[in-house]
Amino acid sequence: MRIVEVGPRDGLQNESTPIPTDIKLRFIRDLVEAGLTEIEVSSFVSPKWVPQLADAAEVFSELALSPPHPPIHSSPQFSALVPNLKGLERALECGVSRIALFTAASDAFTQKNINMTVAQSLDVFRQVVEAFRGARPDGHVRAYISTAFECPYAGRIEPKATANIARALEDDLAVDEISLGDTIGAAVPSEVEILHEHVALYVPQAKVAWHFHDTRGTAIANVAKALELGYKAFDSSAGGLGGCPYAPGAGGNLATEDLVYFLERSGIGTGISLEKLARASLPALEALGRKPASKAQVATLAG
Amino acid sequence: MRIVEVGPRDGLQNESTPIPTDIKLRFIRDLVEAGLTEIEVSSFVSPKWVPQLADAAEVFSELALSPPHPPIHSSPQFSALVPNLKGLERALECGVSRIALFTAASDAFTQKNINMTVAQSLDVFRQVVEAFRGARPDGHVRAYISTAFECPYAGRIEPKATANIARALEDDLAVDEISLGDTIGAAVPSEVEILHEHVALYVPQAKVAWHFHDTRGTAIANVAKALELGYKAFDSSAGGLGGCPYAPGAGGNLATEDLVYFLERSGIGTGISLEKLARASLPALEALGRKPASKAQVATLAG
Repeated sequence: MRIVEVGPRDGLQNESTPIPTDIKLRFIRDLVEAGLTEIEVSSFVSPKWVPQLADAAEVFSELALSPPHPPIHSSPQFSALVPNLKGLERALECGVSRIALFTAASDAFTQKNINMTVAQSLDVFRQVVEAFRGARPDGHVRAYISTAFECPYAGRIEPKATANIARALEDDLAVDEISLGDTIGAAVPSEVEILHEHVALYVPQAKVAWHFHDTRGTAIANVAKALELGYKAFDSSAGGLGGCPYAPGAGGNLATEDLVYFLERSGIGTGISLEKLARASLPALEALGRKPASKAQVATLAG
Repeated sequence: MRIVEVGPRDGLQNESTPIPTDIKLRFIRDLVEAGLTEIEVSSFVSPKWVPQLADAAEVFSELALSPPHPPIHSSPQFSALVPNLKGLERALECGVSRIALFTAASDAFTQKNINMTVAQSLDVFRQVVEAFRGARPDGHVRAYISTAFECPYAGRIEPKATANIARALEDDLAVDEISLGDTIGAAVPSEVEILHEHVALYVPQAKVAWHFHDTRGTAIANVAKALELGYKAFDSSAGGLGGCPYAPGAGGNLATEDLVYFLERSGIGTGISLEKLARASLPALEALGRKPASKAQVATLAG
């Protein structure tokens, strides 16, 4: 079972209240100490676009200078989102060996978010992946497909459309991993099964992760279905950080605490301490003036 | 598909802020107008124990005097919790024809809640059911089994223990329906499946409802599993009313909005308007000074 923690990047990127770098570092260290082994810690996007993550280089260099203390038998991997060649250059200078790229299954969504069509974003992918493979032959490339089920602008997405993007990422770009995102948290298990049927035609299951949002309370049900179908990789965000920008006040990212509670209670070991995890996001939440958005976190802290 | 709305009773009973009767009536009317067809509207428990529901008789008489306006083809059924013969007497005076009785799978829980062992509560059940059948031969009796999976005092409950209570309710008391409650919201789908295997030995599936709590985010996943197993009746509370008294701040009852969203999106028609439902609990929530605890409700109101 792989849990890819996206709180420090995806959870914070849309927050306008600036979080001091030392709080981010503490967050990441506490996540590692709780047992998280894959953490997307920042983004080398232009600081003009996402000022919250302008300290990406500092975060990576601090983590390299003073590594966190993982539990025994755990060795954390840090990754960063890289939007383009310029971002890649900055990431490589920081010694980053795991990168994540971003596209979507909907032109309307990529146009609004990165000012490109999906096809244009794949062209950028190609350049970034080639340059990255040249610099880090053993590096790891993750590709996000956002709006894999539904787009806030274009409505429902045909599973075939999402599968075609996945196929291009697999066949043409040979990425190491594809994360399928239910960006607005609309999907239910029957849709997970249908999308699986389409994507599995082109991409081996072991290369697919699911990135569910809990905007309408369906995320854990979707995880349960994906597990049943044989998937073993899920993205989540500690404290449920990362609200849904399309529905202010509504939940966004699946909370890591909810995921860990569900897996552990289902008899699937994660190596993660729910007690430590439940506390890891508190300083960041406090800095944002937010309450925890994770039910299992609240229950754990109360219990 | 049957949704049993428990917000006006289960959702409010533990709230210390008194809610005016007219807000309760408006809540119930709005639920009916949203399309809910089964609503547990109050409890004939002693007003000394639950002052919040001291107006049960008034609620029933107002609903009889001035019936709510259901959508076409919908005919709402109102029920009340009845703790003992004295409560039954009051309920019968109000013309109640659907009653709900309360026990648990854990002596520790019934002792703390109703100052009886489980066996003693079943003796009370017997008296109440006999008197009720005599007075309302066509009436409907629902029996709650709380702590069906886990008890906040006694820990995990053996599925066999819960199944034995269900068997007694079915064989000895011939209740019309048994609602299996995950009172502290701890269960995951694999536990639902195991409890099903035990209970189905004694009780026909059509007589079983599931009463999940979303304390740790697993409620919809549990609903999905129960649906897969063939069950068609679920309890829920509009606005997620009814926090978990054992973990202050943590979620309690599965929110009706989350349930309706999940069912409708899964292609299972409910006849319920999510937009109307999302607004139905707002006056009660406001009177309590609480924010909605339902993710689908928040997303619906924001959208």
